[in-house]
Amino acid sequence: MFESAEIDHRLSKSEYEAIVPELRDQLLAAQRLLDEQRDKAIVIVVGGVDGAGKGDTINLLQSWLDPRRVRVHGISAPTDEERSRPEYYRFWRRLPPKGTIGVFFGSWHSAPIVQHVLGQLQRTEMDTALERVRHFEKMLSDEGVVLLKLWFHLGKEQQRKRLKKLESKESTRWRVTEQDWKNFKRYDAFADVSARALRETSTEYAPWIIVPGNEPRYRHVTVGRALLAALATPPRTQGTSPTPLRPVEPADDLHVLDTLDLTRRITKKAYEKELEQLQGRLNLAMRSKKFQHRSLVAVFEGWDAAGKGGAIRRITSALDARTYQVVSIAAPSEEERAQPYLWRFFRHVPRHGKAAIFDRSWYGRVLVERVEGFCTPDDWMRAYAEINDFEEQLVESGTVVVKFWLHISEEEQLRRFEARGDTSFKRHKLTDEDWRNREKRVAYTHAVTDLVDRTSTELAPWTLVEAEDKLFARIKVLRTVVSAVEA
Amino acid sequence: MFESAEIDHRLSKSEYEAIVPELRDQLLAAQRLLDEQRDKAIVIVVGGVDGAGKGDTINLLQSWLDPRRVRVHGISAPTDEERSRPEYYRFWRRLPPKGTIGVFFGSWHSAPIVQHVLGQLQRTEMDTALERVRHFEKMLSDEGVVLLKLWFHLGKEQQRKRLKKLESKESTRWRVTEQDWKNFKRYDAFADVSARALRETSTEYAPWIIVPGNEPRYRHVTVGRALLAALATPPRTQGTSPTPLRPVEPADDLHVLDTLDLTRRITKKAYEKELEQLQGRLNLAMRSKKFQHRSLVAVFEGWDAAGKGGAIRRITSALDARTYQVVSIAAPSEEERAQPYLWRFFRHVPRHGKAAIFDRSWYGRVLVERVEGFCTPDDWMRAYAEINDFEEQLVESGTVVVKFWLHISEEEQLRRFEARGDTSFKRHKLTDEDWRNREKRVAYTHAVTDLVDRTSTELAPWTLVEAEDKLFARIKVLRTVVSAVEA
Repeated sequence: MFESAEIDHRLSKSEYEAIVPELRDQLLAAQRLLDEQRDKAIVIVVGGVDGAGKGDTINLLQSWLDPRRVRVHGISAPTDEERSRPEYYRFWRRLPPKGTIGVFFGSWHSAPIVQHVLGQLQRTEMDTALERVRHFEKMLSDEGVVLLKLWFHLGKEQQRKRLKKLESKESTRWRVTEQDWKNFKRYDAFADVSARALRETSTEYAPWIIVPGNEPRYRHVTVGRALLAALATPPRTQGTSPTPLRPVEPADDLHVLDTLDLTRRITKKAYEKELEQLQGRLNLAMRSKKFQHRSLVAVFEGWDAAGKGGAIRRITSALDARTYQVVSIAAPSEEERAQPYLWRFFRHVPRHGKAAIFDRSWYGRVLVERVEGFCTPDDWMRAYAEINDFEEQLVESGTVVVKFWLHISEEEQLRRFEARGDTSFKRHKLTDEDWRNREKRVAYTHAVTDLVDRTSTELAPWTLVEAEDKLFARIKVLRTVVSAVEA
Repeated sequence: MFESAEIDHRLSKSEYEAIVPELRDQLLAAQRLLDEQRDKAIVIVVGGVDGAGKGDTINLLQSWLDPRRVRVHGISAPTDEERSRPEYYRFWRRLPPKGTIGVFFGSWHSAPIVQHVLGQLQRTEMDTALERVRHFEKMLSDEGVVLLKLWFHLGKEQQRKRLKKLESKESTRWRVTEQDWKNFKRYDAFADVSARALRETSTEYAPWIIVPGNEPRYRHVTVGRALLAALATPPRTQGTSPTPLRPVEPADDLHVLDTLDLTRRITKKAYEKELEQLQGRLNLAMRSKKFQHRSLVAVFEGWDAAGKGGAIRRITSALDARTYQVVSIAAPSEEERAQPYLWRFFRHVPRHGKAAIFDRSWYGRVLVERVEGFCTPDDWMRAYAEINDFEEQLVESGTVVVKFWLHISEEEQLRRFEARGDTSFKRHKLTDEDWRNREKRVAYTHAVTDLVDRTSTELAPWTLVEAEDKLFARIKVLRTVVSAVEA
């Protein structure tokens, strides 16, 4: 959930100053239009970890907007008035009328997360509470509210540093309380529970947007642009096509794939030694008694020519041919097109004791179909939730799920195409198509960021593989598979 | 949930024979179109109580349709193959391709209900399971499946009689097993849990349709017409307005309001005695210590001139003026129109120790707004779930919720209008408007049936009041309020 928010996003002072004046003008114009049209209200939900700059950014945002049509509500413990009324009364009474913006600092999302971390709510009770959240947001959205849900995030080390820094200065020391450090001790529990809650309440009409909290300028611009997108979103009313709020693109154009170290490699000798050992362990683990109540699903995605086939063969060569199936996913057949999207994958789900290895997969919906426009934004936005549901069922039934994205640079990709004698690619290289391909690479990079953020779960995490060196990639893949199966 | 299914619905042989030939022709034609267009699949979910004629009607339906494009799946315990795969694998593998009809006899709904009744699932675990059901059905619907969910119902006494009757004949005795009688002993538990599950999984795009199971001809026609409506429903795909499957109208035009005995009355003397006594009890109950952690919400709906005001005054005159508020609901103000529909009611929710009495209410959405076309079918269809959510929160926060529909005959209504000197009504009576009003009464009667079926819950039940005699009505209302508050 937070993978791409923890990379070192930042904007320089000059970049920031080049962006902000126009952004402010656009925000003011959009806010004026909102007031004139009065066809929707904007609800901004603000959540996230302590010290991630929520207050800082919202204050700034207010100074950018016309303050007469924005109301900020700090939601803390319910008042006496509120405690003797239904749970959501305190949110209902503060809803912004159409034409205006309401900011909820702390919201209907907070209680289920906090109470579950503190052990006051069971997991299934939290699910029931999140169900109420979803119903409420669906109702708001059906009634012409555009929801902008911002989650301000800091990595664990980032948060520690941030609290230390605040404490070190006289002027900011008061902002760090004992409670903040107490919460920090629960960082991991909070992160896990939040990630689950965020996934469960991300819908195509009200998705969460993760705001990296570490660097103020980057954070301000991210929030400003997200609000601009929300202001431009038509209300989801009857008879019109629902237009989902799409994930925002990183303001510094830094993506999670860019953080991989593509220089990583391994010697042929070390490779051969480790390969043999890992294949032996895999074979053993899959013949174990325990695995007869488990199954394995391995998903391979990645750039063309990144070496998916080679990595898959290093797995299958360790296995008994009767126990696995490699499923290559191409364009759907006519039979498959007459069924819901996930149907053609559900068919290949392995029974206990078996493995299915997918060469490309159900992630096609949020990769190629998204980038090429084969489905609507609404379709691929709802696909994240459908995929998480699907994988949750897999894991629940005893399936070990591992997912790989094999990453190579554009230059390496080109070299491999040339070595293959792929002339179609060469031809493209010499024409305008070159630019188009480059643009597509950018679009795919965005799609991969969203895919990792929205479908890397504690049950079925993504492994990003540095595949510039094929040998290194194969070993990393095998090692991940082996430790997942052994666990 | 089952109120209107338990009234004595039936069709005579001649009525049935007048309806069926055309219905069959229409079904065949619609099925042919489905095959030609292949833009959607129909999934029929069949559930309900034993002996309610599920098999009987589905068999007949098959004989009415082209059997090559219908597949019936009896879902019983999962096979060995299925048990070692994800929970819903057995449903996925049986999904009908576009252009065809799939019938699921027993479905994804069955397990959560049965397991909760048998104590194998906690209430919150059932909620989590129902959440999976909703996700699955939303996905199906988003992917071009029209869901027709039929719940075959019998009242408790009806079921007992039915089982007895089957047992009494040599030819049908085998159909009643010991298990059937065991299940019968759990009738009430099953009914409560089913009602909750049905409400929680009724959405605007996949609502449950309750099929009264008692009389075969009525049952067959109800199911045939419901299928015809499903076949005529466009798939809910992007860019088109969602067209919800609307509740079916009773084939015999018998409504729950028609079953009230409007001759019920009470003498003036008995009235005065009981009135005084009940008002005393109400006053005492509301001043009790316990009530300081409770509140009261009373909703009054009913025909014009049915006596809502008089009944309300008999309650308020028993109360301390500082403890209650009467909220008369008229057309929304501009401020209210800029907010979600339920906002203007949430504002008036009483705090603990207080009462709010609504003269007309949030049910306007599914009554006047539905009948007059002030909102779309999708709006009023989703309103049932929103209202149930709202009332669940009320009850959860300690509110006692009572809801009344005051029923009078058209003749009595006319008499009262005349006595009031309401000349506008008189004028109407002499013109074409007369017919229009009569048609509206029919439309309202349908709306009341759906309202009772979809929003009468164990937490917040509807009370239908025979109000032809004002005195009788007032006493029935007061008695209901008093016992609800005392409990």
